[in-house]
Amino acid sequence: MSKKIVLGFSGGLDTTYCVKYFEDKGYEVHSVIVNTGGFSEEEIEKIAQHAKNLGVKSHKTIDAVEGYYDKIIKYLVFGNVLKNNTYPLSVSAERIVQAMHIAEYAKSLQADAIAHGSTGAGNDQVRFDMVFNIVVPDMEIITPIRDLKISREEEIAFLKEKGVEMNFEKSKYSINQGLWGTSVGGKETLNSREFLPEEAFPTKVTKGEDDAVEIKLVFEKGELTGVNDETFAHPARAIERLQSIAAPYGIGRDIHVGDTIIGIKGRVGFEAAAPVIIIKAHHTLEKHVLTKWQLSWKDTLAGFYGNWLHEGQFLDPVMRDMEAYMQSSQNHVTGNVYVKLMPYRFQVLGIESAYDLMSSKFGKYGEMNNGWTGDDVRGFSKIFSNQLVIFESVKNSK
Amino acid sequence: MSKKIVLGFSGGLDTTYCVKYFEDKGYEVHSVIVNTGGFSEEEIEKIAQHAKNLGVKSHKTIDAVEGYYDKIIKYLVFGNVLKNNTYPLSVSAERIVQAMHIAEYAKSLQADAIAHGSTGAGNDQVRFDMVFNIVVPDMEIITPIRDLKISREEEIAFLKEKGVEMNFEKSKYSINQGLWGTSVGGKETLNSREFLPEEAFPTKVTKGEDDAVEIKLVFEKGELTGVNDETFAHPARAIERLQSIAAPYGIGRDIHVGDTIIGIKGRVGFEAAAPVIIIKAHHTLEKHVLTKWQLSWKDTLAGFYGNWLHEGQFLDPVMRDMEAYMQSSQNHVTGNVYVKLMPYRFQVLGIESAYDLMSSKFGKYGEMNNGWTGDDVRGFSKIFSNQLVIFESVKNSK
Amino acid sequence: MSKKIVLGFSGGLDTTYCVKYFEDKGYEVHSVIVNTGGFSEEEIEKIAQHAKNLGVKSHKTIDAVEGYYDKIIKYLVFGNVLKNNTYPLSVSAERIVQAMHIAEYAKSLQADAIAHGSTGAGNDQVRFDMVFNIVVPDMEIITPIRDLKISREEEIAFLKEKGVEMNFEKSKYSINQGLWGTSVGGKETLNSREFLPEEAFPTKVTKGEDDAVEIKLVFEKGELTGVNDETFAHPARAIERLQSIAAPYGIGRDIHVGDTIIGIKGRVGFEAAAPVIIIKAHHTLEKHVLTKWQLSWKDTLAGFYGNWLHEGQFLDPVMRDMEAYMQSSQNHVTGNVYVKLMPYRFQVLGIESAYDLMSSKFGKYGEMNNGWTGDDVRGFSKIFSNQLVIFESVKNSK
Amino acid sequence: MSKKIVLGFSGGLDTTYCVKYFEDKGYEVHSVIVNTGGFSEEEIEKIAQHAKNLGVKSHKTIDAVEGYYDKIIKYLVFGNVLKNNTYPLSVSAERIVQAMHIAEYAKSLQADAIAHGSTGAGNDQVRFDMVFNIVVPDMEIITPIRDLKISREEEIAFLKEKGVEMNFEKSKYSINQGLWGTSVGGKETLNSREFLPEEAFPTKVTKGEDDAVEIKLVFEKGELTGVNDETFAHPARAIERLQSIAAPYGIGRDIHVGDTIIGIKGRVGFEAAAPVIIIKAHHTLEKHVLTKWQLSWKDTLAGFYGNWLHEGQFLDPVMRDMEAYMQSSQNHVTGNVYVKLMPYRFQVLGIESAYDLMSSKFGKYGEMNNGWTGDDVRGFSKIFSNQLVIFESVKNSK
Repeated sequence: MSKKIVLGFSGGLDTTYCVKYFEDKGYEVHSVIVNTGGFSEEEIEKIAQHAKNLGVKSHKTIDAVEGYYDKIIKYLVFGNVLKNNTYPLSVSAERIVQAMHIAEYAKSLQADAIAHGSTGAGNDQVRFDMVFNIVVPDMEIITPIRDLKISREEEIAFLKEKGVEMNFEKSKYSINQGLWGTSVGGKETLNSREFLPEEAFPTKVTKGEDDAVEIKLVFEKGELTGVNDETFAHPARAIERLQSIAAPYGIGRDIHVGDTIIGIKGRVGFEAAAPVIIIKAHHTLEKHVLTKWQLSWKDTLAGFYGNWLHEGQFLDPVMRDMEAYMQSSQNHVTGNVYVKLMPYRFQVLGIESAYDLMSSKFGKYGEMNNGWTGDDVRGFSKIFSNQLVIFESVKNSK
Repeated sequence: MSKKIVLGFSGGLDTTYCVKYFEDKGYEVHSVIVNTGGFSEEEIEKIAQHAKNLGVKSHKTIDAVEGYYDKIIKYLVFGNVLKNNTYPLSVSAERIVQAMHIAEYAKSLQADAIAHGSTGAGNDQVRFDMVFNIVVPDMEIITPIRDLKISREEEIAFLKEKGVEMNFEKSKYSINQGLWGTSVGGKETLNSREFLPEEAFPTKVTKGEDDAVEIKLVFEKGELTGVNDETFAHPARAIERLQSIAAPYGIGRDIHVGDTIIGIKGRVGFEAAAPVIIIKAHHTLEKHVLTKWQLSWKDTLAGFYGNWLHEGQFLDPVMRDMEAYMQSSQNHVTGNVYVKLMPYRFQVLGIESAYDLMSSKFGKYGEMNNGWTGDDVRGFSKIFSNQLVIFESVKNSK
Repeated sequence: MSKKIVLGFSGGLDTTYCVKYFEDKGYEVHSVIVNTGGFSEEEIEKIAQHAKNLGVKSHKTIDAVEGYYDKIIKYLVFGNVLKNNTYPLSVSAERIVQAMHIAEYAKSLQADAIAHGSTGAGNDQVRFDMVFNIVVPDMEIITPIRDLKISREEEIAFLKEKGVEMNFEKSKYSINQGLWGTSVGGKETLNSREFLPEEAFPTKVTKGEDDAVEIKLVFEKGELTGVNDETFAHPARAIERLQSIAAPYGIGRDIHVGDTIIGIKGRVGFEAAAPVIIIKAHHTLEKHVLTKWQLSWKDTLAGFYGNWLHEGQFLDPVMRDMEAYMQSSQNHVTGNVYVKLMPYRFQVLGIESAYDLMSSKFGKYGEMNNGWTGDDVRGFSKIFSNQLVIFESVKNSK
Repeated sequence: MSKKIVLGFSGGLDTTYCVKYFEDKGYEVHSVIVNTGGFSEEEIEKIAQHAKNLGVKSHKTIDAVEGYYDKIIKYLVFGNVLKNNTYPLSVSAERIVQAMHIAEYAKSLQADAIAHGSTGAGNDQVRFDMVFNIVVPDMEIITPIRDLKISREEEIAFLKEKGVEMNFEKSKYSINQGLWGTSVGGKETLNSREFLPEEAFPTKVTKGEDDAVEIKLVFEKGELTGVNDETFAHPARAIERLQSIAAPYGIGRDIHVGDTIIGIKGRVGFEAAAPVIIIKAHHTLEKHVLTKWQLSWKDTLAGFYGNWLHEGQFLDPVMRDMEAYMQSSQNHVTGNVYVKLMPYRFQVLGIESAYDLMSSKFGKYGEMNNGWTGDDVRGFSKIFSNQLVIFESVKNSK
């Protein structure tokens, strides 16, 4: 009886190659695609058809969008996570969710082996390897693209020989789309000096200065639940709605430079209108409703959380501990944030919240208050400087 | 013999009142103004004349711009410090430098007392109090505006009675300008909901989309030493030059919301073209030349450094320790950063550095390398997931 | 009608003075004592009688021992909190719980005022002030001992005049006892050089080298639930039991030096057998069952948690966020810890836990494993050193 | 011409095997031993003789003790580094220094290859691999013991066949000695439950309760420079002196449990009298002379510093940044610390320092001060609780 293999399948050249390669090796191939928001129903249908044409034993589509939000994106919002203060970590987060779904699926099929199509050059191989190691530790992991170091040309020749028909053309920019943003790689991102040209970004900018618009984002306990007057059954749907409004402004484009898991520096472009707006809006609301140290510590934890997610360590229980922290911190993060959208930029205008600590009941900053006196502050300054008064005196008496 | 008092003097209503108030009390008043980049020579001259007209015993101007950079701004750049990820901390930093100069000046005059004109409502009183407590612990600190809780109208009446002539009109927005940015307060910043109108910002935007321009910023060991082809004797001069280029684009405007030293939330608008460009450019260069943990730890330290400076604790020796850290971290932060200026926004395009760790010699991210093999990464993933493999297995065996 | 005042009452000289003082001022005095483990039933009874003798309108005893554990001590164990790596924070924690109970009690009585007997010299005044400010913001806080700066002798004279009978002798060492340890102050702790003599410690050492004994501590999700073969209805009872076993060995004595809330350095002796044994045992168990980063981050958070508690900021919601973190971290902290007790010292011997990550199934450290090969580690080392290989090469090529 | 190989050589079974193995493979073998304090002159001599007997082309002894202190131990003292609050990191630190010396030596000989004798089971292989990768990136690394997975018995058989004469007996406990402590592994440390028996520790306890003695440790800028009345030319010599005094008391024994670099938990016994006394004494002195945040931040950094050193990442420039921080922090860490030595334990008694912030000039903790008033503290408490007063009020008004 032939061995069963489960293959993460995107329908691209590499994973198409893998199907045929495994068939050659005598495997019963079960392809699976996990949609984290990057594929339309039509595309999903097309990929399924492609898999069937290739002769897989079965093909499975897993719609992971809402679970992706619940497991990961929610906490990236709570933590205002932008890697190196720039990148919403879209690809990193997607790969983890995809790997977990694929591994669980392989387990349910009692597969003999599990495969991914990553090359030996990037982060994704590590993320897939690690999640597979952890979730299905006894299952063989096979990675032909990495192991064979096969060239694009060789892949195409092999597939043509097998009679496979598909678009073999290489696109100028490699694009990865998902609920939490779209990454863009191209020749410019392979060096340190160049920025991506307008044409590299898949979303076309159709809004001008005259289309500037003010929108309202509604947050409940840190989660986006409404946009303008619309309320959504699930925050993932609110994100999609905001994305459809904001993307045509060309908001949220930049290049991220950072450390890959394998120690080299990598550079990748992205566009992520909804993520960057949500994070900035959410952070502004937090500045009004959280205490000083709540803001400070969440920042510190979220920096690590984002990096550790990026490095594929999502299953470390320390991540659960940090999520407990972040969930607790959101109790009062409820209110409206007003944002103005303009071509290529946006401005958070202000907020309204029943938990606003800038409540005017307690006096306004810069105006005198009834809550305390100048003498109170003088006493405060005295005690607050006490240690340094002593320090200077001791130092100077030497 | 009458007692000597040194008064921090800006020439505004409050400190003008203080001069006359102290004269009434029989003090010999020595006024002093510390320029941290907010005053032109002409303004300085006018303030000196105003002081003399008021009858001070002496008036002193201290040009602190370069020292201000050397003592504080340098480290705010090294740390990429934006309070709450927004505000370059301009006012906080200026007050400390001013307080230190005033205290040292009072010490040199062997004054009996030292005075500041802050009200009891804000952060500045604490900063002045604390630095005075520390630097001149035995000198009496007198703060009439805070103690008398006198109203604007009463101040004016008193000064008119004393025959003082000056502009008594209240401006719609209160502006504080310095080398590291300009703060803007107004009725909009007293609530949480409104943004500042265009007219509130002192710098007028004169550049349009057609004026978009690419500039080059030259960093040496973390400090801005050149702009385009110009090299500067002191980084403070490079900042001024960049400010003159970028300000007319309306870059670097926002509203900062944050915790005051006295525990309430405060909101303040600002414009700070050069600071926000420099910090973003500097940070981008660092992402190329620093290791992962250098980036991460500097972020953590700099967050505290900024907050502690903001709270007036600049003289804590922990700040010196952090400065030693930051200085060490800048050894390789040398190179050019290319930035495109556009109306109300800018884009860091890319960098060039001899210390760029994205050096193509070691292979490009996303392309196969000669330095290691797919098997090396497979081994890495294995070991890197080891603890979680054990953790899951132990958990599941329960 | 006379005004109602609620007074935190310990029965000592200062609070006895306060009762008479308030009576003189026409207040209706309601005394209250909160037992956090320092008083026997007999002592509590005696204090109640003393209050009644003084003529208070009412006296209330609140037994807070289990609540004290549930609210605070539990998290000090989870966090292995020893301030400055030495002191279990007993007094700091007790004062907060006492202040909260007193404030709630005053609220329930609809008192007009609330009082504490702290002097102006220490930490406790700040803790009481702050909790009262927060919990009963509209109630007047009266602090006669601090305000009147009255001497011990004057207090005694006043009380004698009022016909009060009590022990007016000053003890050589001031002792504060509670569930989480006993503090000891004396002339030696007022300087930096001397250690406390044997006689200063209230518990006498009755065990010798021959009494060395091995005990078993049973932890469930981080909480001590059993000692040897005894199981307890509440961890507070387990702590008391351990204390009764270990205290006669003289374990857990030291002097703590640290920063007071008011900026000066303070020094205090303590004995705390059960707390230091529990923390060391709990930490050892954690080293076996938590992942590397769980250990590391909990350490970091717990350091802040302890300091912020010490400074009276227990009601900051950041503390709730940290507690959520710590609670999550304890899911697997279940098992037995074996400890040997000897005079003046103890040794954690080892642990047993179903969640032990040192499980021999995965191979023993220092012996070869089936889980991975030497080549895996070689690959790991290669990738793990990648960034530094690049860094050195770039540096050397300059 | 035969290829040149440099081999880290301890004279033990594994590295003896390597010499013969490489000779068989036609290499010209250059053995090198780096003494980090573990070998007496006699032992060094014996090892050199053994190498020569084996027929190496050359044998080199590098005395690294003082450099080891200057490069690493100094910062472990500054940081009070005890891994997981227990272990002074002796082996981790030694391996790094040894690897760096061996690599530099190989470079100076222009060797073709470099070798270490570590197995595939522990941390040391990673440390040697990494440092070799970084310092001599183009040199082949050969590790026969790891690669051949050869058993002890096979090694012995091979060596006997080659006519090698040496002690082939396996000792019951494996011991690694160095300036900063001695590690002890045995059958007890291979499980989680057992403690090491007295006989496992190489230093015999010869001091009894009657030998209790008080000693004085002299620190200058954080470094131990004197013991009692003796002053030393180099702190390494002061450490050796203290070790000779304290070791016979059996001080500083424990078992460390922690995370290995390769993800499993490891357990190792140790004895380290001087290191644990120095760290506790140094930390106590710091509590008197550093400010609150100096203590807190150094703790945080030192935790990472120790872990990163442990994981072989000493050459990361972030370590240099942290060293700059730590060096700066030690400016005032000058003074005497008094310690009492007793069998199996010690007690820090007190300190004397010209930089002591507990200086009685500023009043004693717990006694009233002239520096501030009760009203100052009342004002301080008011302002310090401000944010939480607002927070509670906003929360309760919901």
